[in-house]
Amino acid sequence: MAATLKTLTVELGERSYPIVIGENLLANAAAYLRKASVPDKSPLMIVSDENTAPLYLQQLETSLKNDGYRTVSAVVPAGEQSKSLDVYNDLITQAIEAGLDRSSTILALGGGVVGDLAGFVAGTYMRGIRFVQVPTTILAHDSSVGGKVAVNHPLAKNMIGVFHQPELVLYDVDTLKSLPPREVRAGLSEMVKHGLIWDKEFAYWCRDNAEHLLALDAAALAHGLEKGCGIKAQIVSRDERENDLRAILNLGHTLGHAIEAVAGYGQFLHGEAISVGMAAAALLGEERGVAGLYAETVSMLKALELPVTLPEDIDSEALMTAMQRDKKFREGKMVFIVPLGIGSVEIANDVDADTVRTIIERLKGREEQS
Amino acid sequence: MAATLKTLTVELGERSYPIVIGENLLANAAAYLRKASVPDKSPLMIVSDENTAPLYLQQLETSLKNDGYRTVSAVVPAGEQSKSLDVYNDLITQAIEAGLDRSSTILALGGGVVGDLAGFVAGTYMRGIRFVQVPTTILAHDSSVGGKVAVNHPLAKNMIGVFHQPELVLYDVDTLKSLPPREVRAGLSEMVKHGLIWDKEFAYWCRDNAEHLLALDAAALAHGLEKGCGIKAQIVSRDERENDLRAILNLGHTLGHAIEAVAGYGQFLHGEAISVGMAAAALLGEERGVAGLYAETVSMLKALELPVTLPEDIDSEALMTAMQRDKKFREGKMVFIVPLGIGSVEIANDVDADTVRTIIERLKGREEQS
Repeated sequence: MAATLKTLTVELGERSYPIVIGENLLANAAAYLRKASVPDKSPLMIVSDENTAPLYLQQLETSLKNDGYRTVSAVVPAGEQSKSLDVYNDLITQAIEAGLDRSSTILALGGGVVGDLAGFVAGTYMRGIRFVQVPTTILAHDSSVGGKVAVNHPLAKNMIGVFHQPELVLYDVDTLKSLPPREVRAGLSEMVKHGLIWDKEFAYWCRDNAEHLLALDAAALAHGLEKGCGIKAQIVSRDERENDLRAILNLGHTLGHAIEAVAGYGQFLHGEAISVGMAAAALLGEERGVAGLYAETVSMLKALELPVTLPEDIDSEALMTAMQRDKKFREGKMVFIVPLGIGSVEIANDVDADTVRTIIERLKGREEQS
Repeated sequence: MAATLKTLTVELGERSYPIVIGENLLANAAAYLRKASVPDKSPLMIVSDENTAPLYLQQLETSLKNDGYRTVSAVVPAGEQSKSLDVYNDLITQAIEAGLDRSSTILALGGGVVGDLAGFVAGTYMRGIRFVQVPTTILAHDSSVGGKVAVNHPLAKNMIGVFHQPELVLYDVDTLKSLPPREVRAGLSEMVKHGLIWDKEFAYWCRDNAEHLLALDAAALAHGLEKGCGIKAQIVSRDERENDLRAILNLGHTLGHAIEAVAGYGQFLHGEAISVGMAAAALLGEERGVAGLYAETVSMLKALELPVTLPEDIDSEALMTAMQRDKKFREGKMVFIVPLGIGSVEIANDVDADTVRTIIERLKGREEQS
């Protein structure tokens, strides 16, 4: 345990909070909550889903109850469909009925869906109460850090949300052992993204250690999550509310979100969709003059067994429309995060729609390439 | 116009914003939006209700369109019922369909319901976009200042919300001329509340000028709104997120919200309910040793033609239950704002449930008194 225990801090002034990464943390959750000054006078609500609840809920409840916390648990269906206003409303009702008040805390035990959903509940219940992230997926190392919480609207993802920083992120790597291999790969997509935007050495480390990461080696995971969360934390610290810098975290997301929407939520996992989006961004980088970017980027994504092409039958114009509805479409121009090289990106506000169309067609024809 | 034009500022650091009060402001709305740096590149959405839209929407639209702003308008049913997640979701859909992006602004043209609802849309659409309050009721001088926005849950009022400060509050007193007399009186309830909690002289000014206020004299209204908004602004500046001081604005609200919930939303207007709540708080103050408080408070409320008693058939235990579900019920104790005299209050965290029960019964028997 000591070998893998890592603690880092998201520096946000009075909203700063720790991220704790390591093995066997769930069983000691109460101690970490006390350290983060989570009060025990008011009830806590643990939100999990039908996948995570049977595996980890009891362990978390027991740790908290044994230390004097009163908890209620809400379990939502697994999957992106739960990021809806309907499920949100159900959780609000349960919170009221359980007597949660302004001193209460909501814990999100699960992946990005649970974190985003429970975080939006915490951010809006009585105009905002405390929130703790307990991620159980690799993907959630991205979404659990930085305070962006939201639910989906039928017309577009994450349209309804707030910025609401957690008090604590408690990352027990033991919970990752239960992930299906496809989820593991999709999670590593966000990990390598942090290397691609910010840290060349880390991007290559992900490629070189792909085998250990895919095998869920605890030391490799703890290092990868520490670096991934650390990069995210640095960026969020400099730009909490996504006025400028923070947008670089959206590498691969402009197209990625469109793929998720057009293919139907859930057809592509988020990490898979942004992997294709990162391949697209690399092509865009090459268009803008950075030679060799696509091959190098794709070598990293393929090492992590991630998709880098589009299905031939996906509707290109539907993708274009969805991209223009995305939040990153601002004041009438197409905005993409474009690599300047491995480990460095720029925010391009002037991307031409025809260039994007061409790249979409190229990604459809690349099934057997490289 | 010059005689009544007042401008004050809510001081909140980088979130500071002006409140402009005066006659004939709607026709000049665009100039005030420009002054507040509201951008014109992205579409604006004006939210109003079926009462305010026919009276003022076209004037506001015209002013904005003539100055190069693109606007879309959404009209919701009038009344508290529109402060629901369903109506909220409709507005989000309309905002997406109209192409609102992160540079867009939402304007609330109406009373507290429209302000709270549109503000919650603005506070959560794409995790928060710009917001301008254009209040058309006296009551809204309270709700439009301070950034508290919310919708109701069937189990309790304002349970779902955020803090989201506007860029500008534009208060055209001409719009108050269309208010039904009952709405005028209910609005003056929040005005005198500001005197009762903070400014003895202003509380007596409200009583002494009740006739002018009830007659909607422009100079009296502009002065009363300036003082009321100014007191609210001072308090919000010192405690933006209601950690302590801001709670004093809830004088009369613990019981008031319960009355609204138990009598059925809309049976009591908000201002009427808190008037009864302020009478209750005065009785509580007398219980705690301040002699003469009740008679003096009631003289002010009655001058403004406000109710100070409870219907005999209202369910006392239902009121008690509703109060204990209120956000101000914190960590198991009953919290009331209790007067120390006219113009000064304290936050009492230790109020005994039986004392509250006794006061409820006394308020039922007071129909013909004083």
